[in-house]
Amino acid sequence: MKLGMIGLGKMGANLVLNLLDHNHSVVAFDVNNEAVQKVAEKGAEGASSIKELVSKLEKPRIAWVMVPAGELTEKVISELQELLEEGDMIIEGGNSKYKDSVRRAAASAEKGIHYFDVGTSGGMEGARNGACMMIGGDKEAFATIEPIFRDINVENGYLYSGAAGSGHFLKMVHNGIEYGMMQAIAEGFDVLEKSEFDYDYEAVARVWNNGSVIRSWLIELMERAFSKDAKLDSIKGVMHSSGEGKWTVESALDLQVPTPVIALSLMMRYRSLEDDTFTGKVVAALRNEFGGHAVEKQ
Amino acid sequence: MKLGMIGLGKMGANLVLNLLDHNHSVVAFDVNNEAVQKVAEKGAEGASSIKELVSKLEKPRIAWVMVPAGELTEKVISELQELLEEGDMIIEGGNSKYKDSVRRAAASAEKGIHYFDVGTSGGMEGARNGACMMIGGDKEAFATIEPIFRDINVENGYLYSGAAGSGHFLKMVHNGIEYGMMQAIAEGFDVLEKSEFDYDYEAVARVWNNGSVIRSWLIELMERAFSKDAKLDSIKGVMHSSGEGKWTVESALDLQVPTPVIALSLMMRYRSLEDDTFTGKVVAALRNEFGGHAVEKQ
Amino acid sequence: MKLGMIGLGKMGANLVLNLLDHNHSVVAFDVNNEAVQKVAEKGAEGASSIKELVSKLEKPRIAWVMVPAGELTEKVISELQELLEEGDMIIEGGNSKYKDSVRRAAASAEKGIHYFDVGTSGGMEGARNGACMMIGGDKEAFATIEPIFRDINVENGYLYSGAAGSGHFLKMVHNGIEYGMMQAIAEGFDVLEKSEFDYDYEAVARVWNNGSVIRSWLIELMERAFSKDAKLDSIKGVMHSSGEGKWTVESALDLQVPTPVIALSLMMRYRSLEDDTFTGKVVAALRNEFGGHAVEKQ
Amino acid sequence: MKLGMIGLGKMGANLVLNLLDHNHSVVAFDVNNEAVQKVAEKGAEGASSIKELVSKLEKPRIAWVMVPAGELTEKVISELQELLEEGDMIIEGGNSKYKDSVRRAAASAEKGIHYFDVGTSGGMEGARNGACMMIGGDKEAFATIEPIFRDINVENGYLYSGAAGSGHFLKMVHNGIEYGMMQAIAEGFDVLEKSEFDYDYEAVARVWNNGSVIRSWLIELMERAFSKDAKLDSIKGVMHSSGEGKWTVESALDLQVPTPVIALSLMMRYRSLEDDTFTGKVVAALRNEFGGHAVEKQ
Repeated sequence: MKLGMIGLGKMGANLVLNLLDHNHSVVAFDVNNEAVQKVAEKGAEGASSIKELVSKLEKPRIAWVMVPAGELTEKVISELQELLEEGDMIIEGGNSKYKDSVRRAAASAEKGIHYFDVGTSGGMEGARNGACMMIGGDKEAFATIEPIFRDINVENGYLYSGAAGSGHFLKMVHNGIEYGMMQAIAEGFDVLEKSEFDYDYEAVARVWNNGSVIRSWLIELMERAFSKDAKLDSIKGVMHSSGEGKWTVESALDLQVPTPVIALSLMMRYRSLEDDTFTGKVVAALRNEFGGHAVEKQ
Repeated sequence: MKLGMIGLGKMGANLVLNLLDHNHSVVAFDVNNEAVQKVAEKGAEGASSIKELVSKLEKPRIAWVMVPAGELTEKVISELQELLEEGDMIIEGGNSKYKDSVRRAAASAEKGIHYFDVGTSGGMEGARNGACMMIGGDKEAFATIEPIFRDINVENGYLYSGAAGSGHFLKMVHNGIEYGMMQAIAEGFDVLEKSEFDYDYEAVARVWNNGSVIRSWLIELMERAFSKDAKLDSIKGVMHSSGEGKWTVESALDLQVPTPVIALSLMMRYRSLEDDTFTGKVVAALRNEFGGHAVEKQ
Repeated sequence: MKLGMIGLGKMGANLVLNLLDHNHSVVAFDVNNEAVQKVAEKGAEGASSIKELVSKLEKPRIAWVMVPAGELTEKVISELQELLEEGDMIIEGGNSKYKDSVRRAAASAEKGIHYFDVGTSGGMEGARNGACMMIGGDKEAFATIEPIFRDINVENGYLYSGAAGSGHFLKMVHNGIEYGMMQAIAEGFDVLEKSEFDYDYEAVARVWNNGSVIRSWLIELMERAFSKDAKLDSIKGVMHSSGEGKWTVESALDLQVPTPVIALSLMMRYRSLEDDTFTGKVVAALRNEFGGHAVEKQ
Repeated sequence: MKLGMIGLGKMGANLVLNLLDHNHSVVAFDVNNEAVQKVAEKGAEGASSIKELVSKLEKPRIAWVMVPAGELTEKVISELQELLEEGDMIIEGGNSKYKDSVRRAAASAEKGIHYFDVGTSGGMEGARNGACMMIGGDKEAFATIEPIFRDINVENGYLYSGAAGSGHFLKMVHNGIEYGMMQAIAEGFDVLEKSEFDYDYEAVARVWNNGSVIRSWLIELMERAFSKDAKLDSIKGVMHSSGEGKWTVESALDLQVPTPVIALSLMMRYRSLEDDTFTGKVVAALRNEFGGHAVEKQ
């Protein structure tokens, strides 16, 4: 099949290579011309603008957008909505908020353009060799592009998940679960670390991956991490986050679903960004006021 | 009424003065002889040992124990159980675990000694001028000592709360609630602090204490704290704890009562004791492994 | 001073009476004419439309809006923005989102209208006899209307809190703290209820209000509630919520402030709305799959 | 190798079969004679008492105890400590508290008996075909029995984890992590369930197991569970627990490690055991008192 790829960052470029491996034709565009050259060398057809990219596709045109979520995605989608025609298809594979996807799909539908929101889990390696993709959009139209997803993902590694927005929603919730799992694992290792015993964490991760209830890719990754740095001495415990955990909690609040574990996983990340807290100052001040408990001075 | 006071630390010494104010006779003992001298100057009768203290009391002897919870209390109670006789009374006013109080009361009862466990809230100032006391023990025997509690506390500031142990249990839960309230207040001020607005916290605490739903002594104390240090700049946000919050959570776990707020209040205190966390290192390592997210190096 | 009151529900009507008590002149309007009649009988001047109300005011006109937050407030404010002129003043006293207040204040400012957002705590009783009011808006203009707030509130019961939006933001955070305090108190009583002791909760609330660290209006209210229903047997434990707790958590997430206690207070409310949970089903199913633990069937 | 197995419940009996598969000789005892007969038919040597079992072993005798944790384990270990001699070995494979294991190991060491505490994850199926075992005890002595663990577990499925107690501690923490992972997964599905989308959960679990970050045995089990009951309609969301999650939280409190996710996972299980809560009644009563919010009546 022939399709256009807009955005040749880590994810987009790897997807192009993956698509080429499976004998798809790819017209590729990025604002960075070098990135275009790179995939062109591997067999993609370069384009110097979105307009040119669209012109090189055949009806029904398929344009896969893989640019940073937010303003950039908004801009590219708007341009595509102008350029594409009835029956054409947009695949949006970034980390977009599902509500944006619902809105963009509705706007595209007004012009008869099919819009697919694709949530991807599996990182660059997944983009290159097969990831896990969750795809929302029109079911009938999906049949046309399904072969692409079958080719580039691991077996059973894609799912048509329902109406537009359902792909990004599902990916968002996936990440929420991921936050919770990671925090659970981390708390466990912290308990081990503070205990009276002296564990070999790499060995612990290894044994937990063989036969135990918690065996999982995340525990495999811990084995790998501990193999490089036995006590993680070189790493600071600063836990950044990139949005989807927060969106999951916000959605949970909107839906009135109690999600204490996902919420606390996120909040402990925020806590890790601070050296000192105003919350702590207030509690320390209160203890000092009523109990005469000494405060620690700056 | 005549009674003995064992332990003349901040709480015990203030209680003696409070009792003397209300025309009770006090025989006072402390391992620190200077502390004995001090209250003797105010009108108490000094004793150089628990044995002497007991000998100076009249039947039914009343011995109030106000020494640090744990080993010291255990030792003093054991000695008193040897020295006292049927009908005598022990008042134990420290921050003891309620299960210890239940056990000690049962052991005392075997000799016919009445045992009262007294949980006290209100700090030194309360000990001196009237606190809040929660008292467990034999109901009938309590009638004998009730006048003491009526005299030394604020109005309605004592409660016979039921069987032995119920006083310390009630005080423990009081502290659990206190942890939750303090953390709630502190989180609120932290949200204000990070907001786009520029609040005068002393004024905020003042207005919240006048007519609002959350008016409380703790908010009064915050007004006082902010009046001394408008942004708490001089204080580190290290939140120590002294046991009763932890016991509340442990009891809640035993009783299968979900207490997320009290538990999290405690856990955020523990978190504040650490500059960096192993939990954070594990999560950062995982993010690095699967997503290539940069870790912060030590 | 003369001012208009738009919205004569529980809060608005009581505010009118309160204002009249303090010799202010009030022009009152409500879509419900009966409500207008009622306050007219007490000395207010009735109006049959917002337009009429505005026409009866003198420059600088002061219009206090006390209608349900959301659409209705939006509509009334829009109309006022049309009718009022430079130098006039809008006081918006509902439970609005602070971002709406920021936006409305900016739109009003374009016409030279001063906009004040007022967060109120203290319920109907407070509206009638003196509440706690937090007021954002232009500082200089506030001087004009400050006497009103001085008259109708308890002493120290109002605060000019800063720029527009800061009043509703402060009220929102107040409610977040309130959620946390309430849940903390409730968890404590739940631990008492499940314990081996048999407490008289009314007496417990009373003693906690006399000399203890947690003395507060909320504990007073508990004393009152237990005096009517000793074990709350007549009440179901369903905890509704009205928005501001949720907004506090959402703001905290936006500001990256960890607020586990406020968040969990809210989530336990959501949990209480459900008889059974999908979360529980999933965990039960998992335990069954890996451990053969029996599930409970519907 | 020849060893004795005491306790032929689901786990013990399957371990015997597993051991026999790998050409070990097993002397088996259970208070239930039928259970002894069953494994005797498969090649084990039956014993009618612990004494007889011990007499049939050869020095150094190896006795594996697989009886319910608590009193029964205590009783069997005491008897073994009487019967065994210097150089003999006890393997204790139940779900014991690690502090009990530390204590029992020390008592055994006084008689020169080597004590190994073995935490097992993987259920009956694991006992039969290979599980994950975490083993604490004397390192040198472990060399003697290591071949047994190598034979009966999956590859890399056992770990000598350090001093006595470390095996059960590690298993305990494993279960704490398990609680957190399960709750995270369950919260995620609950968010899906309440969302505007209509997901096929079996398909969701399947796609998440192929290429995603959260792929894990637990998600595999969810796929299996949803394949049997697409929406878990037949199951009640009652989440029981069996101790190790609670012990993990208790240990975390003792070690001052913040474990919000594991703690909340446990507390939500407790919450699921109740139809109504006293916590909820208190909050509902408070809302009614200060805001006139209607309570729901029983």
